[in-house]
Amino acid sequence: MLGIDPNSGAALHRQVYESLRGAILDGSLRAGVRLPATRVLAEQLSLSRSTVADAYDQLQAEGYIEGRHGSGTFVAPSLPDDALPQPAHLSRPLDAQHPDFQLSAWGNRVVQSGRHVFPEGVSLQTFGYDFRPHRVAQDVFPWDAWRAGVDHALNSDRDALFYSPAAGHPSLRETIAQHVTKHRAVQCSPDQIVIVNGTQQGLNLLAELLLEAGESVAVEDPGYPAARHALEARGSKVSRIPVDHDGLMVEHVVDRGPFRLIHVTPSHQDPTGSTLSLSRRLALLDEARRTDCVIVEDDYDSEFRYEGRPVESLQGLDRADLVVYAGTFSKSVLAGLRIGFLVLPRRLVQPFVAAKSTWDSGAPMLEQLALVAFMRSGAFERHIRRMRRLYRSRRDALVEALDDAFGDRVQVGERHGGLNVLVRLDLSVSADAAALRAAQAGIALRPVSSYYEHPPVHATFLMGFAAVPEDTIAAGIRLLAQVLEAG
Amino acid sequence: MLGIDPNSGAALHRQVYESLRGAILDGSLRAGVRLPATRVLAEQLSLSRSTVADAYDQLQAEGYIEGRHGSGTFVAPSLPDDALPQPAHLSRPLDAQHPDFQLSAWGNRVVQSGRHVFPEGVSLQTFGYDFRPHRVAQDVFPWDAWRAGVDHALNSDRDALFYSPAAGHPSLRETIAQHVTKHRAVQCSPDQIVIVNGTQQGLNLLAELLLEAGESVAVEDPGYPAARHALEARGSKVSRIPVDHDGLMVEHVVDRGPFRLIHVTPSHQDPTGSTLSLSRRLALLDEARRTDCVIVEDDYDSEFRYEGRPVESLQGLDRADLVVYAGTFSKSVLAGLRIGFLVLPRRLVQPFVAAKSTWDSGAPMLEQLALVAFMRSGAFERHIRRMRRLYRSRRDALVEALDDAFGDRVQVGERHGGLNVLVRLDLSVSADAAALRAAQAGIALRPVSSYYEHPPVHATFLMGFAAVPEDTIAAGIRLLAQVLEAG
Repeated sequence: MLGIDPNSGAALHRQVYESLRGAILDGSLRAGVRLPATRVLAEQLSLSRSTVADAYDQLQAEGYIEGRHGSGTFVAPSLPDDALPQPAHLSRPLDAQHPDFQLSAWGNRVVQSGRHVFPEGVSLQTFGYDFRPHRVAQDVFPWDAWRAGVDHALNSDRDALFYSPAAGHPSLRETIAQHVTKHRAVQCSPDQIVIVNGTQQGLNLLAELLLEAGESVAVEDPGYPAARHALEARGSKVSRIPVDHDGLMVEHVVDRGPFRLIHVTPSHQDPTGSTLSLSRRLALLDEARRTDCVIVEDDYDSEFRYEGRPVESLQGLDRADLVVYAGTFSKSVLAGLRIGFLVLPRRLVQPFVAAKSTWDSGAPMLEQLALVAFMRSGAFERHIRRMRRLYRSRRDALVEALDDAFGDRVQVGERHGGLNVLVRLDLSVSADAAALRAAQAGIALRPVSSYYEHPPVHATFLMGFAAVPEDTIAAGIRLLAQVLEAG
Repeated sequence: MLGIDPNSGAALHRQVYESLRGAILDGSLRAGVRLPATRVLAEQLSLSRSTVADAYDQLQAEGYIEGRHGSGTFVAPSLPDDALPQPAHLSRPLDAQHPDFQLSAWGNRVVQSGRHVFPEGVSLQTFGYDFRPHRVAQDVFPWDAWRAGVDHALNSDRDALFYSPAAGHPSLRETIAQHVTKHRAVQCSPDQIVIVNGTQQGLNLLAELLLEAGESVAVEDPGYPAARHALEARGSKVSRIPVDHDGLMVEHVVDRGPFRLIHVTPSHQDPTGSTLSLSRRLALLDEARRTDCVIVEDDYDSEFRYEGRPVESLQGLDRADLVVYAGTFSKSVLAGLRIGFLVLPRRLVQPFVAAKSTWDSGAPMLEQLALVAFMRSGAFERHIRRMRRLYRSRRDALVEALDDAFGDRVQVGERHGGLNVLVRLDLSVSADAAALRAAQAGIALRPVSSYYEHPPVHATFLMGFAAVPEDTIAAGIRLLAQVLEAG
């Protein structure tokens, strides 16, 4: 809905202004709706906060929105006269403006988080140099093998396409069980595996199944914002536990607990890249057993490890039937698949399947069956091995390019795996302002501030290297240095 | 998990016994877990209640399960000695049996509903004659056109397969807006459309967004059980409003309200097949406006109407921005797609997208893009027209076959549309017992009792005709009559 194009030539604050004004006029931003904070919207759009603030100022001056002290910025209850007439596509004559529906406490928390005001967001937007995190290579993908998997699904077991078992297709559960046993030292049988529409759904189902509002949970700090957001929406009391070079500082879990649920990224901490040490793993499992706590092990990108031996999963060490291992195909195959899986403690399988079955009727079958064929043919492992080499080269190219372009004004964090590195730049401007200038030059950058309770003082970015072809990385980083020094 | 095969030769109660015992031994049914009521399990498996009761009796005699007066049947806390050794696939040595995790109120309601104890259910089971409701033809499907749509998706916009906007792909939202405007007189713009992972997810998101436990909602009686189940799980106070030949009896809504949300099937009431009259539509909209109530119009199979002119949607009459129109591709394309959509009131678009985005990151892209190609090529409308003719013939064949075989001992309900008819048989046995005998002969039948607060006294079934090839319908019904008369 908010289409900001840094290359269009129009001033960015004017584009933000026009988009918001349009949304207010066509009714998709209704009277009384709270707008996201300028900082939040700026981050979503990879723009500077001042750009968004300029747009808000103009909308406020013209009467489209109004600020209320201490509670934010809202669409004005009545619009300026010159806002009429209404656009033609609003064909239905509604009786009048209707007030917002009363929402649940969950609904209010979700809306008031200030996220997601713009349904389409910017996820379909493309950049010349896309250094956003958690992106995979789009220029190299085994289309023929994937298409063969899809073809197999369309031809081999057509009857299965007419159904959808809540827990997922048995053949995919079995294939995943074999894969995670072999590659991640997960210990499970296929009936502990439930296919979900992405791990975010898995986490929400666990939270809904286990948590009442007000109960205590823990997440990493810095840590993956969407996981924290889901738990905050549920009304959980969320403790943010600090992370160091050995991962989650488990002694703080012990001090600040007990918790009902802990979300953790032990193989490759998001965003710092650290690995949870063995002694901390054992301490975390002990503490969880002592306090009857569910651990969600989010293993979001451990396929991609470039140095050292692979770390086995936390789940493989669990003897107390309390770790949920969450895996995804968004990084290893295609993000648009929307297929993830949980390996559940035995005592949670039935309640979880009941929860999944109450919420929807299972994941899409075509993609489940295509994945089975893709995995069983060997194409999946080949793709991962190939991407591991490719991403390592891209990582090396990024680190080298950053060194060349920024010299002693850059610090790069842990880099032994994954799709991103933390990058701190010594700049005269803020991370937001830097991201704005970069976006204007066609370079996408993501400041890492939303991962932190107390964001770093120096401009710090979670830079993805996987989506940028190796031969353009150096040029992209040189351009970035130019753009940032010009300021 | 519970694999019951009526053709295996083994006695059915023995198969149920073995399956349950196996599940208890391998730990997937843990000590203390409440088993579904015999009636509920019998219904899930299309078996007689006495078959399930026999199996329960034997398990209880052997010490695997125990009954507690007034609260149900539970897996025994300690297993009989001869239950050991544990099966080999339980490879991980757990420390001990662990008690169930404490669940949320929602979790407890979902688990205690007694549904979904068996993750895989019987949805992949096939029958010689499948008269279960809500099934579509599997013998006639435009595979070439669907495959062309999938191919188009894999070739045309590959970049889109790496993302997933929370509200759905813009091209699909636009295509659906055009379709429902033209065919269902829905009044909307594309930005009111959100793609969901099936309409059940849509209903759950609405309930989570709008309802606190204890708030009042209304559903039809008889009515679609899964919708009621989702609302009951949320802790809603669910009123079951009677239905007659003009659909939902709106005067009872007025009497028993106000309600925060009403779930209704106005085009083709599920299961009676009646159409909500125009005067009742207007009265329902009035009452909803007066009480600030959201109406969920579940338009689950209105593509298939065989007589009379199509009924326009309730949404098209709404001038108060309060109807949510829910559509699905499960009946018109493939159930395994798991793609549905909501047309939202303008004032609910943003909160709903925030809810969807918090829960998962959108629906799978391959299937969204394949649907766009399938719809834009004209194949979708051709398929619906063709199925309309096919299903009408199958309906006629079913009604004729029932008349021939059962004479004045059968009554068939409304039959002007959809995929099922209500069929009442004068039998000397119950609907459950009849369904069991039918299953043993390879005929799948679904008693309609779970749709009712007070199930009908006479054996009544919701019989699907769409999935049974026309040339086998008469043979299937003759066999059914034989089987039921033999008893």
